[in-house]
Amino acid sequence: MVRITTPTLVIDRRRAERNIRRMVEKATRSGVTLRPHFKTHQSKEVGRWFRRAGVTKITVSSLTMAEFFAADGWDDITIAFPVNLLEADRMNDLAARVRLGLLADHPTALEALDRLAQHPVSVWIKVDTGYHRSGILWTDSHTLEDIARRAAAAKQLSFAGFLTHAGHSYHLHGREEHARLFSETVERLQAARNCLPEDLRQKCMLSHGDTPTCSAVETFGGVDEVRPGNFVFYDVQQLMLGSCAEEEIAAAAVCPVVGVYPERHEAVIYGGAVHLSKQAEALADGTRMYGFAVSWDGDGWGAIDPGCYLREVSQEHGIVRFPGMVPVKPGDLLAVLPVHSCLTANLLRESVGVVG
Amino acid sequence: MVRITTPTLVIDRRRAERNIRRMVEKATRSGVTLRPHFKTHQSKEVGRWFRRAGVTKITVSSLTMAEFFAADGWDDITIAFPVNLLEADRMNDLAARVRLGLLADHPTALEALDRLAQHPVSVWIKVDTGYHRSGILWTDSHTLEDIARRAAAAKQLSFAGFLTHAGHSYHLHGREEHARLFSETVERLQAARNCLPEDLRQKCMLSHGDTPTCSAVETFGGVDEVRPGNFVFYDVQQLMLGSCAEEEIAAAAVCPVVGVYPERHEAVIYGGAVHLSKQAEALADGTRMYGFAVSWDGDGWGAIDPGCYLREVSQEHGIVRFPGMVPVKPGDLLAVLPVHSCLTANLLRESVGVVG
Repeated sequence: MVRITTPTLVIDRRRAERNIRRMVEKATRSGVTLRPHFKTHQSKEVGRWFRRAGVTKITVSSLTMAEFFAADGWDDITIAFPVNLLEADRMNDLAARVRLGLLADHPTALEALDRLAQHPVSVWIKVDTGYHRSGILWTDSHTLEDIARRAAAAKQLSFAGFLTHAGHSYHLHGREEHARLFSETVERLQAARNCLPEDLRQKCMLSHGDTPTCSAVETFGGVDEVRPGNFVFYDVQQLMLGSCAEEEIAAAAVCPVVGVYPERHEAVIYGGAVHLSKQAEALADGTRMYGFAVSWDGDGWGAIDPGCYLREVSQEHGIVRFPGMVPVKPGDLLAVLPVHSCLTANLLRESVGVVG
Repeated sequence: MVRITTPTLVIDRRRAERNIRRMVEKATRSGVTLRPHFKTHQSKEVGRWFRRAGVTKITVSSLTMAEFFAADGWDDITIAFPVNLLEADRMNDLAARVRLGLLADHPTALEALDRLAQHPVSVWIKVDTGYHRSGILWTDSHTLEDIARRAAAAKQLSFAGFLTHAGHSYHLHGREEHARLFSETVERLQAARNCLPEDLRQKCMLSHGDTPTCSAVETFGGVDEVRPGNFVFYDVQQLMLGSCAEEEIAAAAVCPVVGVYPERHEAVIYGGAVHLSKQAEALADGTRMYGFAVSWDGDGWGAIDPGCYLREVSQEHGIVRFPGMVPVKPGDLLAVLPVHSCLTANLLRESVGVVG
């Protein structure tokens, strides 16, 4: 029983541990390293659940997160974000203490990194396999070789391999499309590696990661490492993408009810953009929504009713739409299954409860 | 000169103080109390700029914010958010120390508040004058009288008046429409008050607040108090609403450049949804954007080029689109004028610099 007075991220431990176990088993079965992305939970406690499941290597998306988890004993950390040269001092401090992996996708960044690094650092070359956010295009074998060569030749740097994030999986729907994208991504990484000269090719590991494709496939063939993160909690977006079942969603924001408006079939909760984020999803009829509202009994949350959702969030307010009667009163609690659990967990990281 | 290595909210003090001064002068000229909403900045330092301009009463949107500012000497605070009954203990602690105003819009909440309050508290009745987020409809004179009567009769509570937020101003465009909404809102508040019996009517102050309408009018006629907040910083949303000039925008998120993609006319910055929020605006041609990217010279930011904007944000990444050549390299800094400065300031409240 969690005592809640303000918006709180409640994690269902049984579900989260089951999600972790499944991904660990799939990686083990595939002979592939699972280096889960910890940006999703940003929680030392959840990190320990991973550790107990056998995970020893992690991914984060900022130096601050790397420092946070290093302080809890994690010593093999990849910052899967293009290296921020302005944080060289802190980066060097951290690299003195842990096995640090960094990302580069530009000769300028690599040269600067070479100049700044005072301790050994593994460098992953970020490859753009179709998402077009960051990375060197998988077909640009000239630049890929150039930058891999520079990394391999640098004093404190070593060339770790090619790393990609297939974020365009979020534009596809269903396991079949996601599994197809997994294969395509692996093929593109392999094709990029095949263009390298022998000496670099032999060193070049392949790292891939995103929750939709990693949830869709049965085995992780063709890569050395996978880095999904969101799967520990899943969320409404993943449910709508077909990447998880409702029973796999392992985190909810539990929020106080502060207003009821029966004539509008609505309630207002203390739970807005600063707790849940402004990330929206579309319902079947195109209506924008910011999470499903479900019942909360003090130990867990109830089932989704598609007619029961947050129709709007402002800074602190969330407006919950009900299909009929408003079943709550001021002083009650409602749980919100978030659209994007990574953003909600980030916003509520100082206010977390665990059930199950 | 602010030294920046991670995403940082930079406040232009000269502009912010000018924005404060103008609103203070308008309120003074109108003979109306300015009780600015401090949720926008959540900064003790910015609060002191208001204090130096003569402000003594403030608005916040959570008990946590009220405690934060009470710790800096503010002793007349309205929490302009429907009262959260689950925080009664902390509320009582605070009410023992400061003049606390709370909002109620439901008999159940008011009864509970009457039972729970151990120290004097002013109760504002939240009135819905057309925004339909929270509040009792301005035409529902029966409920308004009922709840005002209960507040006036309660042991520790006193009836302060009617309070509204015309959030639908964000759906209107230009000073003329906003000024018209200001008048309409005041008329509706007055009409609601006119339906009260004489004894309650005499006690009933009127409080109104939102940045678009308060920016549009020349004087605040017809109310006792105004509560705008965003005007201290303004932002891209206010600019697009016609509520401010570009030169009045007083806060920007300064972010490291971590990737450049000349063939896409894009750069990637360390600055994503966890720094800026996911709030979007539409450009003239309908393109969604998450802020304008402008140059940063260490002491201030440059002018807006409408072709230079954030086309996407993920958790930590922001993708900046340029109209032509990419004028930055990894290790440089760019400033982002945020779509909604309240949300950006909330996310970056631990990372703030001041210029000017």
